[in-house]
Amino acid sequence: MDLSDYFPIWNKLTIQEREVLQNSAGKRFAQKGTILHNGSADCVGLLLVQTGQLRAYILSDEGKEVTLYRLFPGDVCLFSASCIMTNIQFELIIEAEKDSDMWVIPAEIYHNLMENSASLANYTNEIMAARFSEVMWLIEQIMWKSLDKRLAAFLVEEAELEGTSSLRITHEKIANHLGSAREVVTRMLRYFQGEGLVALTRGNIEILDKKALQSLL
Amino acid sequence: MDLSDYFPIWNKLTIQEREVLQNSAGKRFAQKGTILHNGSADCVGLLLVQTGQLRAYILSDEGKEVTLYRLFPGDVCLFSASCIMTNIQFELIIEAEKDSDMWVIPAEIYHNLMENSASLANYTNEIMAARFSEVMWLIEQIMWKSLDKRLAAFLVEEAELEGTSSLRITHEKIANHLGSAREVVTRMLRYFQGEGLVALTRGNIEILDKKALQSLL
Repeated sequence: MDLSDYFPIWNKLTIQEREVLQNSAGKRFAQKGTILHNGSADCVGLLLVQTGQLRAYILSDEGKEVTLYRLFPGDVCLFSASCIMTNIQFELIIEAEKDSDMWVIPAEIYHNLMENSASLANYTNEIMAARFSEVMWLIEQIMWKSLDKRLAAFLVEEAELEGTSSLRITHEKIANHLGSAREVVTRMLRYFQGEGLVALTRGNIEILDKKALQSLL
Repeated sequence: MDLSDYFPIWNKLTIQEREVLQNSAGKRFAQKGTILHNGSADCVGLLLVQTGQLRAYILSDEGKEVTLYRLFPGDVCLFSASCIMTNIQFELIIEAEKDSDMWVIPAEIYHNLMENSASLANYTNEIMAARFSEVMWLIEQIMWKSLDKRLAAFLVEEAELEGTSSLRITHEKIANHLGSAREVVTRMLRYFQGEGLVALTRGNIEILDKKALQSLL
């Protein structure tokens, strides 16, 4: 796979801009557990995930973590280049949650291109808006919803009722059970999947870590 | 004051772009309490605050509020034009917290300009990064700071905003700001009163020891 495959707006860039990106981008492999970015201590650049999985989280003074979001193949990690925007005043940590391959575009190169390319600046806007939306979702979960608990309880109970850890049930049906909306349930299930609690396939939910689900209750 | 005074990057725009902005921008006055933007129900446009104060908050299904940030004269409200970015997938409400004057730039006009202007797109990026930073600060407060610190921070900030140490505000309203319950806030305020930090009378909170409050932060 070429660098161009990771830029949805590749065809909106000039030939010169493409060349600059192509020539400056490097490949990097990170073993599971590697810290790729640590707050304002570095400014690695944009990471374009090819394989594996990255995790963005914040860390309290007391060492507590909160996962903000995850990045999967095809996703772009913007905040590992947070120095390119003066108004980013928060510190987050990016780690390789699985063995990961990625492209790295140096922060300064990207910044220079973005200054003059409306396409690249708007693309950057959309990446940030997507991450912002994930963080807003998280705030709402933290403040108001106990849906995670209710969903975990439902899955555990259902598995016991059916005598199997492989549940054949639609998200729609679960939403009905919980008096919620299908999209909301799907999103939470994907969050659970990201946490390694369940595996989702079409029409099926496999419970991988029942103890962890029960610990949510 | 002219529209140009509210655009830090005015001189980076072309004469044509300035004309488009100037011709499309309208003035608006909003009385205290007016809802200027309500989630995805509208897409008013960019608001450039001239006088007064706006508040951005989210609302739970049960009607609980959490204040995300405030906007003051010179600030730009981007999310009242959230429709211009497809990846903004959250709903927030913008209200005039004081009688406010503002410029309104229609969302579509701004969007069209931004598509072709790297300067405007980068400027938009910086606005979003600033709001993102405020929300990240809030997450850290919610997750890790205890209510005494958040309440102390709120009282100190409010006193500075209002230019008085005598705050006319209900416990209910403070609870909404902090995403807490009235009883919890009342209890903490009484604790503060017991410590000699504030004096409580009906509908009023007198700050007696600002330094001690600040030392809690």
